[in-house]
Amino acid sequence: MPTPRTVVITESSPRDGLQSLGAIIPVTDKVALINDLAAAGTVSFDAVSFVNPAAVPQMADAADVVAQAKQPGTHLIGLVPNVRGLEAALEAEVDGIGVLTAASDSFNRHNINATLDQSMARIRSRLSSVPSEIGVRAYVSTATHCPYEGPTDPARVASLAAQLSEWGVEEVFLGETLGRATPPDIENVVIEVLKHVGPERLGVHLHDTFGQAIANLVVCLETGISRIDASAGGLGGCPYAPGAGGNVATEDVGWLLNGMGVERGLDLTRVAEVATAFCKKHHLAYRSKTGIALLSARDTEQ
Amino acid sequence: MPTPRTVVITESSPRDGLQSLGAIIPVTDKVALINDLAAAGTVSFDAVSFVNPAAVPQMADAADVVAQAKQPGTHLIGLVPNVRGLEAALEAEVDGIGVLTAASDSFNRHNINATLDQSMARIRSRLSSVPSEIGVRAYVSTATHCPYEGPTDPARVASLAAQLSEWGVEEVFLGETLGRATPPDIENVVIEVLKHVGPERLGVHLHDTFGQAIANLVVCLETGISRIDASAGGLGGCPYAPGAGGNVATEDVGWLLNGMGVERGLDLTRVAEVATAFCKKHHLAYRSKTGIALLSARDTEQ
Repeated sequence: MPTPRTVVITESSPRDGLQSLGAIIPVTDKVALINDLAAAGTVSFDAVSFVNPAAVPQMADAADVVAQAKQPGTHLIGLVPNVRGLEAALEAEVDGIGVLTAASDSFNRHNINATLDQSMARIRSRLSSVPSEIGVRAYVSTATHCPYEGPTDPARVASLAAQLSEWGVEEVFLGETLGRATPPDIENVVIEVLKHVGPERLGVHLHDTFGQAIANLVVCLETGISRIDASAGGLGGCPYAPGAGGNVATEDVGWLLNGMGVERGLDLTRVAEVATAFCKKHHLAYRSKTGIALLSARDTEQ
Repeated sequence: MPTPRTVVITESSPRDGLQSLGAIIPVTDKVALINDLAAAGTVSFDAVSFVNPAAVPQMADAADVVAQAKQPGTHLIGLVPNVRGLEAALEAEVDGIGVLTAASDSFNRHNINATLDQSMARIRSRLSSVPSEIGVRAYVSTATHCPYEGPTDPARVASLAAQLSEWGVEEVFLGETLGRATPPDIENVVIEVLKHVGPERLGVHLHDTFGQAIANLVVCLETGISRIDASAGGLGGCPYAPGAGGNVATEDVGWLLNGMGVERGLDLTRVAEVATAFCKKHHLAYRSKTGIALLSARDTEQ
């Protein structure tokens, strides 16, 4: 079972885990979440989105969160959907920039009122305004399935990834938005993309809506992919399946990596404690099986 | 990604899913669970255990459940921990017999007050009393980890499997009792066991306590293993991690098999409906991510 020696997990709970919540989480609690997870060993954060506050009120405090959470040894990424967001992110002095396009025309039309070509052109324009010392991560979402179009053509995803790579992004992340893919779907798209983007620059953002994310991740690791998004406690739901799970849980990913002998330096019990306390305080479902098992074992031993 | 063409899922909810519950489920509800899952396409059931009612009160009605649930086209397996249980199972006219040993000495001592050698000798004695027309499934539990001894030696599991196979059991099932194994653990033991037992006679009983069961199952399917235990709604907890999940959910397994193009003939939405209703009626946690997503999608469409 070939696997990369080291893997970087980007912690998605502060941004992707929270952005769909109705109740606004106070800045201090978002900053504490980042600080506590950093203390547990997290280095990279999908921290905030510089999006129109009217569209996503939860992210209206993005600049404040970055200002208060920024610290040596951590990398805070700000997602920017447009030029205005990019300007705000640079002003807030984020450590990295995230841009996103869907692989399907219909999803882009529904999500950002643009065709796929328009979405890519807008990304190219934004990239030209990013200072060279700031790394950019480009997400290609709906990488295996689109809620409007069904299965996504792996060749199209590969072509988008190649284009983004040519434009100089540091990382390309494939987003399995609906969480319905199984290992053959993931294998098909990853093999195509790897023809254009090396495994050391390729990442995956997996959702666990149908309980397949860890199995899908194994396929990715076997191809040498070494960058993973995950969310403590599985924070973040799936807008296309209300009540169902969203992001794959950091604790479950960490348990897999431990078992595969991959270095990543996270204290999983501490991550579970932090996420459990956060979920309890904000009345959110805690969704990591590894976390529940680790905390249960801890309580039994005490 | 090589996989078997067909897979038989044995539905474990009636026996393994219920046996640890404190509140006794009425016979009629157990029978309805079997009937409803049979109507959804389930053929094979881990139906009951003929165990000392004082030790496991939930299974005191085993003979009644078999009498009322027995029907053409389904295969009801009764687990028998001893000769007395075997006699009761044969009298109840089960379709198949299950026997079990742990792979570790300590687990057998704690569980059945016997050494591993004694446990195997007792199985051999029971096997000699089973009529030739009744198939026997032999479980080897703690196949990767023992709660008392830690990691299990794959060579020992292989040796036990070879012995059981020589004694004429129809199927050998590896039990990942603690649900803490990751794909490399599973791969190590399965490769050893396959030296002695063909993939068409080898099955796996996986727990999802740490959220790794579907990933572990992919490894098994890639080796050609075509027999799987799963429990509707993930029914059944883990006695070694209270509050944590136990059996891998039938719905999640079925979603994986669909994605891998494997035939198995289950109506997953119907399985989810049956298990959700059962869990609701008996105040149990419903734990299938695929099931939650499927029912959510169904409700959105209506």
